[in-house]
Amino acid sequence: MSNPNYTQMWENLNLDLSAHDGLLEVLGKFYGDIYLSQQGRLKGMEYLDFVLSEVHGLRIKELQDAKAQGRKVIGTFCVFVPEELTLAADAVHVGLCAGADAGTEQAEQLVPRNTCALIKSFIGFKMARLCPYTESCDLVVGETTCDGKKKAYEAFSEHVPMHVMEVPHTKSQSARELFKAEVLRYKEQLEKLTGTTITPQRLAEGIRIVNEKRRALQRLSALRASDPAPISGRDALLINQVSFYDDPVRFTQSVNTLCDQMEERIKAGEGITPAGTPRLMLSGCPMAVPNWKLPYIMESSGAVIVGEESCIGTRNTRDLVNESADSMDAMLDAIVDRYMKIDCACFTPNDERTGNVTSMAKELKADGIVHYALMFCQPYAHEAFKIDKASREAGIPMLAIETDYSMEDVEQLKTRVEAFVEMVRS
Amino acid sequence: MSNPNYTQMWENLNLDLSAHDGLLEVLGKFYGDIYLSQQGRLKGMEYLDFVLSEVHGLRIKELQDAKAQGRKVIGTFCVFVPEELTLAADAVHVGLCAGADAGTEQAEQLVPRNTCALIKSFIGFKMARLCPYTESCDLVVGETTCDGKKKAYEAFSEHVPMHVMEVPHTKSQSARELFKAEVLRYKEQLEKLTGTTITPQRLAEGIRIVNEKRRALQRLSALRASDPAPISGRDALLINQVSFYDDPVRFTQSVNTLCDQMEERIKAGEGITPAGTPRLMLSGCPMAVPNWKLPYIMESSGAVIVGEESCIGTRNTRDLVNESADSMDAMLDAIVDRYMKIDCACFTPNDERTGNVTSMAKELKADGIVHYALMFCQPYAHEAFKIDKASREAGIPMLAIETDYSMEDVEQLKTRVEAFVEMVRS
Repeated sequence: MSNPNYTQMWENLNLDLSAHDGLLEVLGKFYGDIYLSQQGRLKGMEYLDFVLSEVHGLRIKELQDAKAQGRKVIGTFCVFVPEELTLAADAVHVGLCAGADAGTEQAEQLVPRNTCALIKSFIGFKMARLCPYTESCDLVVGETTCDGKKKAYEAFSEHVPMHVMEVPHTKSQSARELFKAEVLRYKEQLEKLTGTTITPQRLAEGIRIVNEKRRALQRLSALRASDPAPISGRDALLINQVSFYDDPVRFTQSVNTLCDQMEERIKAGEGITPAGTPRLMLSGCPMAVPNWKLPYIMESSGAVIVGEESCIGTRNTRDLVNESADSMDAMLDAIVDRYMKIDCACFTPNDERTGNVTSMAKELKADGIVHYALMFCQPYAHEAFKIDKASREAGIPMLAIETDYSMEDVEQLKTRVEAFVEMVRS
Repeated sequence: MSNPNYTQMWENLNLDLSAHDGLLEVLGKFYGDIYLSQQGRLKGMEYLDFVLSEVHGLRIKELQDAKAQGRKVIGTFCVFVPEELTLAADAVHVGLCAGADAGTEQAEQLVPRNTCALIKSFIGFKMARLCPYTESCDLVVGETTCDGKKKAYEAFSEHVPMHVMEVPHTKSQSARELFKAEVLRYKEQLEKLTGTTITPQRLAEGIRIVNEKRRALQRLSALRASDPAPISGRDALLINQVSFYDDPVRFTQSVNTLCDQMEERIKAGEGITPAGTPRLMLSGCPMAVPNWKLPYIMESSGAVIVGEESCIGTRNTRDLVNESADSMDAMLDAIVDRYMKIDCACFTPNDERTGNVTSMAKELKADGIVHYALMFCQPYAHEAFKIDKASREAGIPMLAIETDYSMEDVEQLKTRVEAFVEMVRS
């Protein structure tokens, strides 16, 4: 993935060039092993392969070009930051590097060792100057969804321009009003940063674009209910991951093209694995690029993953913004209503999630659920107990995994996952 | 502390009698070693010794008597639950057992292993039937101050009658409104539970009683600025701990009596340790009864503790409710204003706390700060970095400790604390 054409750009972004080359080399090899080695992939995945190969290259070039035209780049870590508003301000909305161990030692100078890998990663990527997205940002938008991120943003804000949105932790009327005030504050911040006034017309277009993206991902998700599964879980995860980086209109089109191919494949009775392959659903914490460890282990253990119940998955795509509103205030209300439906573990009691997990598992005909929590992620580690209870009651076995980004536990995870696959197969 | 007079009462509360006897025996021995072994204690500490010796006895008897008269008992874990309202509803406001390892194995069936000792403790005490306070409660009031407690209450609510208040994580106007709505909701819940209407007169009296308690503890805190220190840190911590259990009017009187004795001692130039003893301030997580491990280590290492910047310490006593309001709404506003001043690590960015810590250290003439975070307490572990920076800038050295309730790290802690005491002494 290293490319001399981009060296100057990376240098301008003040990346640590030699460490960054090393990162891309590892990432390229990892991608080859986990992705390109798959048999019978859909033709449409070529686009995703290309996007990923250019994730630090062409896409960053596009961001620089946008910046040269006066557009602003907004970096985020969480599905609570309304992309609709970002687009309405003619800014670019991107996720930031957070899926691999990088700069860990430097990160541990800023946050406690007992911090989840995702948080240490985004801080480490910044401190080690390895993420061209972070370096391209005009503003990074955080939120108060968990103690770890909320407090890490305080340290992070000394290194990047930050705006933190308060996400409430219940769904009361007052909590909704707090979130609406925060959505308004984000809108004002965007208008100030970009110099663009967010008109109802612009916002309607932002809502439409993001809804279209979510509809395409919903379509992808629904097609995975077929047996044999038309796409691997790895590829589906990659698509969800790329949805946070790519241009939304181009991305939507490519996902719909891919879905057309999936429909043909389903019609022909074909799949990525034979019919009857044990079907597993992933549930829990988000998996940022290139956090493919557990999906790879699962699909190398004779199973196919049929759904990702996570922020990089259905938690981000399940709900649409109502498009019938036409005044600014009604549109903002529609946005708030949509975001307050998110079944994030930050909410208490968050019973919606247990319902969503079990009904999703049934719709996708999952034989089992693998619950994935990042080590030290308290909200999802707690909810693993509830999901376990709910899935047992629904007759679907669950395996609870807690891990981080290191490769040290791969053999142990393999043993546990293989035993689980054997169990659901029988 | 075991007492046959109370056996029937404990049995009625469905305690595990033999395990509870064992607990009281350990607690009694621990108290003897850490407290009764001290030389030159203030006469007024006899009251505290008595209260602690009867903490599972006479005080529980009082709660049962109150219940027999139709009064309700409200259990809490956090300084965000307004005691003023509880008293105004003629209910009893108490803290619950959370300071010792108990029922850990059972607790880990309900919450993740990587949960702080305090949370595991309150769940373990309940599941092992060892806390007569928890068993006496008509309602337990939780809050959303950290991910660990917020999610643990979901599991806990299956075992005790719970009411959870949302505490916001910023101090914006909307966040204040959310908290006010939650205070109102608590008021309504209390009125429903007790059948008592909270009138302005009742609330004014509740505010006055709690303010008086806080004033007495403020007086105690201020007297500790003297050198030699008039009271040990262990004793002062105990007083703050007992403030969560004892009858507030009786307690306030006893603290004021003790303060009179401290003033005499100061006048006579006497202290609990010689003048010039290294003075340390504790800062961070709350230490619930009988979590005296670290204070004991510190004061056995040649230092005296002169202040506790924690929820069981100045975070709970620093601010008073304005007493000038006379309408219900103005009083509620005064309560909300007071509680929103709390410098809990749940807030972001919580810069107030760094200011409060350094100014408190200066007022108390502390030679050093020991920052105490419970293992897996993310909010305080994160803030340790900020407190360290602020205290270094203020010229006050800081030692960061992360520990739990086990005794396994005692020797290691001793070594670190002794080295720190030597460092601040020189």
